[in-house]
Amino acid sequence: MKFDAKLAQKAAENLKKLREKKPLIHNITNFVVMNYTANVLLAAGASPVMAHAQEEVEEMASVAGALVLNIGTLTPDWVESMVKAGWKANQMNIPVILDPVGAGATNLRTESVRRLINDLSISVIRGNASEVLSIARRGSFTKGVDSIHSVDDASDAAISLAEELGITLAITGEADLITDGKRILRVYNGHPMMGRVTGMGCAATAVIGAFLAVDDDPVTASATGLAYFGLAGEMAAKTSHGPGSFMISTLDSLYNIDPAALKDGTKIQV
Amino acid sequence: MKFDAKLAQKAAENLKKLREKKPLIHNITNFVVMNYTANVLLAAGASPVMAHAQEEVEEMASVAGALVLNIGTLTPDWVESMVKAGWKANQMNIPVILDPVGAGATNLRTESVRRLINDLSISVIRGNASEVLSIARRGSFTKGVDSIHSVDDASDAAISLAEELGITLAITGEADLITDGKRILRVYNGHPMMGRVTGMGCAATAVIGAFLAVDDDPVTASATGLAYFGLAGEMAAKTSHGPGSFMISTLDSLYNIDPAALKDGTKIQV
Amino acid sequence: MKFDAKLAQKAAENLKKLREKKPLIHNITNFVVMNYTANVLLAAGASPVMAHAQEEVEEMASVAGALVLNIGTLTPDWVESMVKAGWKANQMNIPVILDPVGAGATNLRTESVRRLINDLSISVIRGNASEVLSIARRGSFTKGVDSIHSVDDASDAAISLAEELGITLAITGEADLITDGKRILRVYNGHPMMGRVTGMGCAATAVIGAFLAVDDDPVTASATGLAYFGLAGEMAAKTSHGPGSFMISTLDSLYNIDPAALKDGTKIQV
Repeated sequence: MKFDAKLAQKAAENLKKLREKKPLIHNITNFVVMNYTANVLLAAGASPVMAHAQEEVEEMASVAGALVLNIGTLTPDWVESMVKAGWKANQMNIPVILDPVGAGATNLRTESVRRLINDLSISVIRGNASEVLSIARRGSFTKGVDSIHSVDDASDAAISLAEELGITLAITGEADLITDGKRILRVYNGHPMMGRVTGMGCAATAVIGAFLAVDDDPVTASATGLAYFGLAGEMAAKTSHGPGSFMISTLDSLYNIDPAALKDGTKIQV
Repeated sequence: MKFDAKLAQKAAENLKKLREKKPLIHNITNFVVMNYTANVLLAAGASPVMAHAQEEVEEMASVAGALVLNIGTLTPDWVESMVKAGWKANQMNIPVILDPVGAGATNLRTESVRRLINDLSISVIRGNASEVLSIARRGSFTKGVDSIHSVDDASDAAISLAEELGITLAITGEADLITDGKRILRVYNGHPMMGRVTGMGCAATAVIGAFLAVDDDPVTASATGLAYFGLAGEMAAKTSHGPGSFMISTLDSLYNIDPAALKDGTKIQV
Repeated sequence: MKFDAKLAQKAAENLKKLREKKPLIHNITNFVVMNYTANVLLAAGASPVMAHAQEEVEEMASVAGALVLNIGTLTPDWVESMVKAGWKANQMNIPVILDPVGAGATNLRTESVRRLINDLSISVIRGNASEVLSIARRGSFTKGVDSIHSVDDASDAAISLAEELGITLAITGEADLITDGKRILRVYNGHPMMGRVTGMGCAATAVIGAFLAVDDDPVTASATGLAYFGLAGEMAAKTSHGPGSFMISTLDSLYNIDPAALKDGTKIQV
């Protein structure tokens, strides 16, 4: 397989900028992944903050480089906080990325995703194939939070949906697909063990958030962010003995990958 | 010591079924252990979901293979969600398992456990000796969430209580005791380091939940689930250097133990 | 550099007492760090409990050896619980330690810290330089939760503030500074990688809480607790390959350091 050299170069530049700027990434995310997400962002070079109180989300979002919304353990009052933070981010041109965890599994999740899409201007949605299908086809396509569809199952629906919504979609799975409805990129970095650690998808979303803070183009920010995160998984797989050591080794790899190593390891196709 | 060969065989069969069916395990659990519990379930082969909003717990429970309720960081509204999810699970014959974390330490905990026992049909309660004693003797027998009693201290009370409530009790400690009031099983798998990692008891409860999704008998599901989890701890102890690496290595071991290894390593006595 | 021999001896004594008494440490803390904080306390030898419901915090605090308050993911109702727990602790002469995570970043955080300081008798505040400056100078001196000031930037303000409030301040950073306005101690233990793992500051606060449970003097409890925690970081740095393995190895080191090793490794200057 041949990969795109310009995008590999772009990945390296984005990582370099991330480490120079150390952008604050404001996360309103779920209880399961808060710790791992914060550690992933710190390992990458960003400065994470988790804050969800309606009394402070606008202030926090207004100084962030990106706002990450994740509905993994949502309740209605958290959705209100997401809307409030998102409005503020939109006003100030701060990119917003949404992770629709479990969309399609319950009405609360499906409706909350719809509301966030309607009320906010969102740059990127990162989900698995089932979650993206549930948004596109307005029905239930999932059981719990693990995907029961392949990325290829969802690709046509994703391209139409991205076009219709004007949002870049990043579907992660065997080979990630990123599309804004016109451009279609595939990212071949990653490792199957990533599916055996909770919150890997959520962490990928946060990494895209960090890349959005240094790259105005949601398509290249998503693809290069996923290449970086996937490469860390590939490296972790070489030294780990199961999902526990893999999870920890991924943090080490995120920290140890420098822009040059990322350039060499990036596997993006246009 | 001689161990029961039939139950070792049963443990292997349960693990095999778990990996084939990959049941969705719905957890309404505490903030401290959500991440580790999800990772334990994924490593074992199940598909975990954490969801606590009253607006979605019925929908989520209704597609689950088991419902795990854990009061570790409870508030009254979370108890309402537990009752709602539990009713739905009961209606649909989905097994419910309860972890009474800190029962006896505060009135809120003791009363919440009583309410869950009264309002729901529960298959298994998994707790430490102090927690089980606080349910049996209706008083305070604990300080915080760590047990101050041995399993043997609580065994007579547990046998009576299991009989009275019609609930299987699994008391974990030096040698776990499982009883439905008639049968009494002891599980000798495990390692003392498990007491030095937070959420190991909660994770054991979730593993029993996963085994309940593939084994209709709460007594054998509990004993074989605890044998599997304890064996992972034994293996982890061999390669770890303290509680941190032990915690991570336990995840690796859960993933790496196959049915044959579990059959060989199971230490259950009737 | 020469270090204080008496305080090294005191550190060893405090660790010895901690392991004998195994005090219950009641934490009302943030979602990001609950798991790691509990594991740090267990590794150190304490017995952690996390409980935040207004219905139970007084009961839980009243049996604790110390109460740790941390505003990292605060909402107004959690602040009410902190006040309630704090009042009870004050009544019963149980030491209270406050971690003002992100003070200065939002009004909610700054005002909540002010309220806790006004309403409660607090033994120790542990924060980074920006957080302590935001309390001292009543303005915004931070972006998110990572410090943008050095410990030396904040030392004069800290000494005045400690005197004014009658609270011991522990500012962590390159070289920690502990002061009650009269005494000034510096702790040279620690490792830069501690800044790349989320919740290391919060865990340091909890360790000070555990030392407060066995040492009546907030200045020596803070300094010896930070020396112990910092030494664990130094040891972890020797065997780890990045922030993930460092985080885990720190838990192992906390467990493996015995009083004699702590006496040898403590680097406190008066």
